[in-house]
Amino acid sequence: MTTKIYENHPYQLPQVVADLRKSREETHKIRHLGRVRELPSRHALEEILGGIFASLFPTHYGRSDLTDESIDYFVGNALGIALNQLSEQIRRGLYFSSSNDLEQEAKFDALAHDLTSQFAAELSSIRALIVSDIRAALSGDPAATSVSEILLCYPGVSAAIHYRIAHALYKLGSPLLARFISEIAHSKTGVDIHPGAQIGEGFFIDHGTGVVIGQTAILGKNIRLYQAVTLGAKRFPEDDDGNLIKGAERHPILEDDVVIYAGATVLGRITIGARSTIGGNVWLTKSVTSDSNISQAQTLGH
Amino acid sequence: MTTKIYENHPYQLPQVVADLRKSREETHKIRHLGRVRELPSRHALEEILGGIFASLFPTHYGRSDLTDESIDYFVGNALGIALNQLSEQIRRGLYFSSSNDLEQEAKFDALAHDLTSQFAAELSSIRALIVSDIRAALSGDPAATSVSEILLCYPGVSAAIHYRIAHALYKLGSPLLARFISEIAHSKTGVDIHPGAQIGEGFFIDHGTGVVIGQTAILGKNIRLYQAVTLGAKRFPEDDDGNLIKGAERHPILEDDVVIYAGATVLGRITIGARSTIGGNVWLTKSVTSDSNISQAQTLGH
Amino acid sequence: MTTKIYENHPYQLPQVVADLRKSREETHKIRHLGRVRELPSRHALEEILGGIFASLFPTHYGRSDLTDESIDYFVGNALGIALNQLSEQIRRGLYFSSSNDLEQEAKFDALAHDLTSQFAAELSSIRALIVSDIRAALSGDPAATSVSEILLCYPGVSAAIHYRIAHALYKLGSPLLARFISEIAHSKTGVDIHPGAQIGEGFFIDHGTGVVIGQTAILGKNIRLYQAVTLGAKRFPEDDDGNLIKGAERHPILEDDVVIYAGATVLGRITIGARSTIGGNVWLTKSVTSDSNISQAQTLGH
Amino acid sequence: MTTKIYENHPYQLPQVVADLRKSREETHKIRHLGRVRELPSRHALEEILGGIFASLFPTHYGRSDLTDESIDYFVGNALGIALNQLSEQIRRGLYFSSSNDLEQEAKFDALAHDLTSQFAAELSSIRALIVSDIRAALSGDPAATSVSEILLCYPGVSAAIHYRIAHALYKLGSPLLARFISEIAHSKTGVDIHPGAQIGEGFFIDHGTGVVIGQTAILGKNIRLYQAVTLGAKRFPEDDDGNLIKGAERHPILEDDVVIYAGATVLGRITIGARSTIGGNVWLTKSVTSDSNISQAQTLGH
Amino acid sequence: MTTKIYENHPYQLPQVVADLRKSREETHKIRHLGRVRELPSRHALEEILGGIFASLFPTHYGRSDLTDESIDYFVGNALGIALNQLSEQIRRGLYFSSSNDLEQEAKFDALAHDLTSQFAAELSSIRALIVSDIRAALSGDPAATSVSEILLCYPGVSAAIHYRIAHALYKLGSPLLARFISEIAHSKTGVDIHPGAQIGEGFFIDHGTGVVIGQTAILGKNIRLYQAVTLGAKRFPEDDDGNLIKGAERHPILEDDVVIYAGATVLGRITIGARSTIGGNVWLTKSVTSDSNISQAQTLGH
Amino acid sequence: MTTKIYENHPYQLPQVVADLRKSREETHKIRHLGRVRELPSRHALEEILGGIFASLFPTHYGRSDLTDESIDYFVGNALGIALNQLSEQIRRGLYFSSSNDLEQEAKFDALAHDLTSQFAAELSSIRALIVSDIRAALSGDPAATSVSEILLCYPGVSAAIHYRIAHALYKLGSPLLARFISEIAHSKTGVDIHPGAQIGEGFFIDHGTGVVIGQTAILGKNIRLYQAVTLGAKRFPEDDDGNLIKGAERHPILEDDVVIYAGATVLGRITIGARSTIGGNVWLTKSVTSDSNISQAQTLGH
Repeated sequence: MTTKIYENHPYQLPQVVADLRKSREETHKIRHLGRVRELPSRHALEEILGGIFASLFPTHYGRSDLTDESIDYFVGNALGIALNQLSEQIRRGLYFSSSNDLEQEAKFDALAHDLTSQFAAELSSIRALIVSDIRAALSGDPAATSVSEILLCYPGVSAAIHYRIAHALYKLGSPLLARFISEIAHSKTGVDIHPGAQIGEGFFIDHGTGVVIGQTAILGKNIRLYQAVTLGAKRFPEDDDGNLIKGAERHPILEDDVVIYAGATVLGRITIGARSTIGGNVWLTKSVTSDSNISQAQTLGH
Repeated sequence: MTTKIYENHPYQLPQVVADLRKSREETHKIRHLGRVRELPSRHALEEILGGIFASLFPTHYGRSDLTDESIDYFVGNALGIALNQLSEQIRRGLYFSSSNDLEQEAKFDALAHDLTSQFAAELSSIRALIVSDIRAALSGDPAATSVSEILLCYPGVSAAIHYRIAHALYKLGSPLLARFISEIAHSKTGVDIHPGAQIGEGFFIDHGTGVVIGQTAILGKNIRLYQAVTLGAKRFPEDDDGNLIKGAERHPILEDDVVIYAGATVLGRITIGARSTIGGNVWLTKSVTSDSNISQAQTLGH
Repeated sequence: MTTKIYENHPYQLPQVVADLRKSREETHKIRHLGRVRELPSRHALEEILGGIFASLFPTHYGRSDLTDESIDYFVGNALGIALNQLSEQIRRGLYFSSSNDLEQEAKFDALAHDLTSQFAAELSSIRALIVSDIRAALSGDPAATSVSEILLCYPGVSAAIHYRIAHALYKLGSPLLARFISEIAHSKTGVDIHPGAQIGEGFFIDHGTGVVIGQTAILGKNIRLYQAVTLGAKRFPEDDDGNLIKGAERHPILEDDVVIYAGATVLGRITIGARSTIGGNVWLTKSVTSDSNISQAQTLGH
Repeated sequence: MTTKIYENHPYQLPQVVADLRKSREETHKIRHLGRVRELPSRHALEEILGGIFASLFPTHYGRSDLTDESIDYFVGNALGIALNQLSEQIRRGLYFSSSNDLEQEAKFDALAHDLTSQFAAELSSIRALIVSDIRAALSGDPAATSVSEILLCYPGVSAAIHYRIAHALYKLGSPLLARFISEIAHSKTGVDIHPGAQIGEGFFIDHGTGVVIGQTAILGKNIRLYQAVTLGAKRFPEDDDGNLIKGAERHPILEDDVVIYAGATVLGRITIGARSTIGGNVWLTKSVTSDSNISQAQTLGH
Repeated sequence: MTTKIYENHPYQLPQVVADLRKSREETHKIRHLGRVRELPSRHALEEILGGIFASLFPTHYGRSDLTDESIDYFVGNALGIALNQLSEQIRRGLYFSSSNDLEQEAKFDALAHDLTSQFAAELSSIRALIVSDIRAALSGDPAATSVSEILLCYPGVSAAIHYRIAHALYKLGSPLLARFISEIAHSKTGVDIHPGAQIGEGFFIDHGTGVVIGQTAILGKNIRLYQAVTLGAKRFPEDDDGNLIKGAERHPILEDDVVIYAGATVLGRITIGARSTIGGNVWLTKSVTSDSNISQAQTLGH
Repeated sequence: MTTKIYENHPYQLPQVVADLRKSREETHKIRHLGRVRELPSRHALEEILGGIFASLFPTHYGRSDLTDESIDYFVGNALGIALNQLSEQIRRGLYFSSSNDLEQEAKFDALAHDLTSQFAAELSSIRALIVSDIRAALSGDPAATSVSEILLCYPGVSAAIHYRIAHALYKLGSPLLARFISEIAHSKTGVDIHPGAQIGEGFFIDHGTGVVIGQTAILGKNIRLYQAVTLGAKRFPEDDDGNLIKGAERHPILEDDVVIYAGATVLGRITIGARSTIGGNVWLTKSVTSDSNISQAQTLGH
């Protein structure tokens, strides 16, 4: 008899469900607005990214059997679907931008549409930047043998493509979606580039795992980074009440042609002059002039 | 003629299959018990985690269209399914706990059921801890703008949620499943927290890639870590026969409110006093008192 | 009326599609050959790897309900399917090997077949190496409790299995596929081992995130590495025109029984003598003799 | 050269696409309204039906592992999702009801919501009718052994459940969706019941293939039909211009307890009196009184 | 305000869920036993059928790229999986056989195993019968051009294969599963053969839609049927209380080499003598001698 | 001990696999050619049909959210993919056409390509015929309310679309694929139209279950059929050796504007004159002149 009850009520579900509701609504409430808003969806964003990647490099990221006569249909169709989905996700994201007046909610649909159209118009410029990144990879890694290898096997290039897309959305006014995309890239590649960072053409990260680039970093042209490089903030400015000031410029500026080797940590609003090389594992918190060559002093004990 | 034979026997499959059987059963046997036991399944665990995440934060990790009247049904259903699956995976895992007497196999089903029920009863406490982690992220990162951004885009928070679940299972007596969950989190986020570690409320990891926290580490409240921080063992104690002693206390203790910056390595059973700050890339193997501020001496050569 | 046009032409698709075609074919063309070649497919490779993993360890990576009478059928079937797919992917990859004369294209199908057959014949040797890696993990990590835990929960072991497969393909003459596999492993585990590296039996990486092992590295038997270890190149040799010389020997040699702790960076064609230990975060660019014990000098300022 | 062109333009896609556009927009246009309306989706309807079936008979059509404590969560969740989807499909369908004024389009969302709520409120009455149908099957077929066999293996019962749902939607004002559901049932079971037909409790069709029941047919209680029975119209009334008059009463009335054997054809607005039996293959176009027993005269030639 | 409530409680879910529970448990209860039993699953059965079909005709129903060396692995693996699943489904079905004593439940697992083993042992005999059916199709239809066309495009042959499998399970003691399979075939092909029917080798149904063959029918060798043929019961014998007597012999016996054309209805325990031909649409309720040629008298009015 | 063996060898798989091989290769061999040929795939054909349906009626069978600017990309992409797949399936089918010389195998690829191109060129004509069928449905069924209802809910129209596609392939020289498509339609709709039949514009089948139209039938314009109508062969001509003569003209000719009601059977190479009406269940084996009105004499016994 006890067994039968046990069989049919194994987990005290009603109690657990009630406890969780109480946690959501009273004791550990995290929702600040009175109303549920539909959140952007990771699954939808991954599909959208698949569509945009396929539009930019149809034979590498789309279908390998495309022909001259079918390729534009493929691109147009992939884009048409991806842009429709993107518009919906942008709309959902607008609720989370502090700069958006929720009283304007009725206009969010049209606003999302507009942002999406602007994004679409930038796609060939985005592609141009990515091609410059691919060329940087081809010339920067002695192990690289072809453009195809780079598009298929280089996580740093995958991270760069995600960044180029996320940055465009960030600038257009969709920061939550941009961050979501950068996190998807981070999860796949181990490279964490904040979409607010500004990065010039010809950008290459080799290996990539552990690279972190902060929100206000500015990188010139032809920057090359290796795994585990941090371009971070030294400290976080606080206001008089001790609250963090959001958005302050706090990350490094790298001028053109800088190379930073694996594990180096560059912190604060400093400037690395053009053509400088920062050695592996270096810890750097002060600006250096152009053409500097910084390396870690070696101090080994047997 | 040769072609035909070639076409139909391209890979010498019977030979390869026989070689692999010989490898499994004789030359490179890794199975120690006489009998095959059904192993826990990664796919099942990922589904279970999906169900538990959805139960804890239904609109963020479940469905975005839930209403007040549908949300409890959603939570109860997601939990009911996840707990059933979890009970089966726990049962499978029991065979791998050295502390379980295989003679007691007949009781594993009921034991798994009991563990699952206890886990269910802890879910709202687990949620409370996770909410404290989310709040720590919101106050600890100047770039964070909303709870939703944190739940969707912060790998450190995702790693913390996985850890909270895995640690509960670890304590209840399901260490293999707990490790499996921590490895799933590691693969997604680059953060590797052993489920045996003890971590207080308000835990936040920023960026996260490369963080490693060992099995016997103890972290107080409001700990903040950055990417690539290691809380590891300095050496592994061996017994008289030179075998590693499993389970010995060998990882650091962090008191409340400690902050450790990117790339720092803290090794051994040392104590970092409350409110201390450990700088980036610091290598630390000795205890430091409360309110310490440790940073790497900079030794740069041009 | 305007609305209607807007509704039906929201994204100026024809313009965007035309711009992207122009970018592909004129302004930012990356295709060097006149003809599209079918590229290897990540999805196909992931299926192939699933099949090979399942063939090597059927109950861990295949089905958990296999019996003595069904296991060989399972292995033979999984292999038969995986090898067929692999042969097709190898064929596609042959177009990207600089050493292949495209005039020989007609022979690529038979060549791919041959390579696949040779790969199949090596599978039990590959399994033997992997079993040595598993045993190294079991004896090298005090937290490890069973072979099953290691196969299911150790990213370093997963990376090693991927490497063993990729290296075999690399040696047989399929470098693009080998790289593709190493990148899939990198994405899952955070461990980046170039398939050209040579690694002896009993290889173990603990935690693993951020490990990088370069193309020409040579590792002896029983090597143990921790997270974020780099075995990299110091500089890239250039030819007289300033172009990188591809393929030169530029990565370290590790003799048998070397251990390298977390975050250490070992660069250049140096030799680490047998039985040496390299401490965490060490930066090493010169050879060390056998039985060396290198650790970072600690220079901390308060 | 020709080959290359052929390879890249195998199908003259631009010509075919242009021809199809011309066919759609000019020569064979079938769209009467100026604007595309989103159509109901077969895939969505099949999911909705799955959810409703599961809500009505949770262990037969939902999950077989439900317990007393989980079953209501399962039902509530399945219903919540299905009703949300249904509301959207009803909204789409409203555009196709001639009785709906398209000027009222702005109210379609609320109207669909209302219809869905009314449908939800009828679900337990619908279940009661279906249970009467199941009991009729159990008592009417000597081969039937259990309720489970009937729910799982009787196409006539499956058709009846589909009809009960479709008829409720038809009455509530969603005729297109109702027809769509009846066609889904037809495709699965070979039984074609127009959702406009009125059928009393205890309805049973055995075998079922080829049964057709017309839009204005009225069936009393405890009707039993066999395969290939037609309850059709004899002729279609036309108006003065020779156009078919839609909706006129033109199908038979069956009073309570009528049985009609396989292949019988009953046409026109005739009445079959209570308790009558119509034999196999009978062709009937005139009313018959209660308790009639009609059979085909047998005229065989050797 | 009303809107908000409406938004969050659109469907009165708690009321509907409570009503449905009441319907299930009180007003329209259909469950007779006190305990829920796990029901056989249509999805599982469809997978099992896929596996058995693939085992019997590997290149037609399995994979089209099998080779001499891979085919046995494919068959063994497909069978191993299918038989395991079948054993579980048979076990579930045992609860529904009136002849099984529920007190024997503990033995159901072993019993299901035994039945499955016996079924496996019969598979090559089943294949022999199916090949005789295929040959009958090839010689019986002037439009048939190859064995492959018959296996891929003939619903009557598909129905026959399903029947051969279902009948074997029926004889072994798994009538519910057998019925379930016959219903799956019915849904796909429109042919409804009760698994209890006994049918000799060389059986062919052309077109097939609407064919019904009853539980106690006996068909000799080389029977050919066309669409819409019914081999049914004339009346259902009742016991003294007016209840249907289940299982009584009530369907026709067809001796060898009988042909029955489209739409003919043959009812009751009559015998059609060897080599007889029954014309289209004939209605037959009396036995006929061997070599009879029965056709419908034609009575047409202009 | 016995149990353990039983556990691991439950099904005597090696014996069953060997028996099945023997059945395939010796006792019940059905393969006539020495070599396995890759068979057309039902799954592939269903995808191809999905693509062609979507190309012909993009908003009904493709995506419901298409706009004026996206629709041609959608159509071009869906067609490009479907035609590529079709070409491969046609190639496979060529091996089964008796008229193809297997010595010409090397040319099959180009031949399949050619047939596919011709098929593509006919698509807009096919669409024109289908639109005429839709209009016939709209004017022929008093219950029909819109073109959308007809495209979504009328199995007879679905069968007609399948037939139009299959017939085009049949004429182009791909009879096996054509038959395969007609069988897919048969399974979904219960309507069995041989692709060799010739059918004029404005063709409508109502309800449809059980309709059979033979290989050499010829139907004029504006034919209307109801469920269970057979247009079949009376007898099959044999050659002097008693073998069926394949391909002989043996099915009816229907002149324009003929209507045939449910269940009528029309057999043999007879002609039904223009504008004739054949009543339900009529059995007709002789030609009738134009404007005939044939109905079944009613012979009822009480």
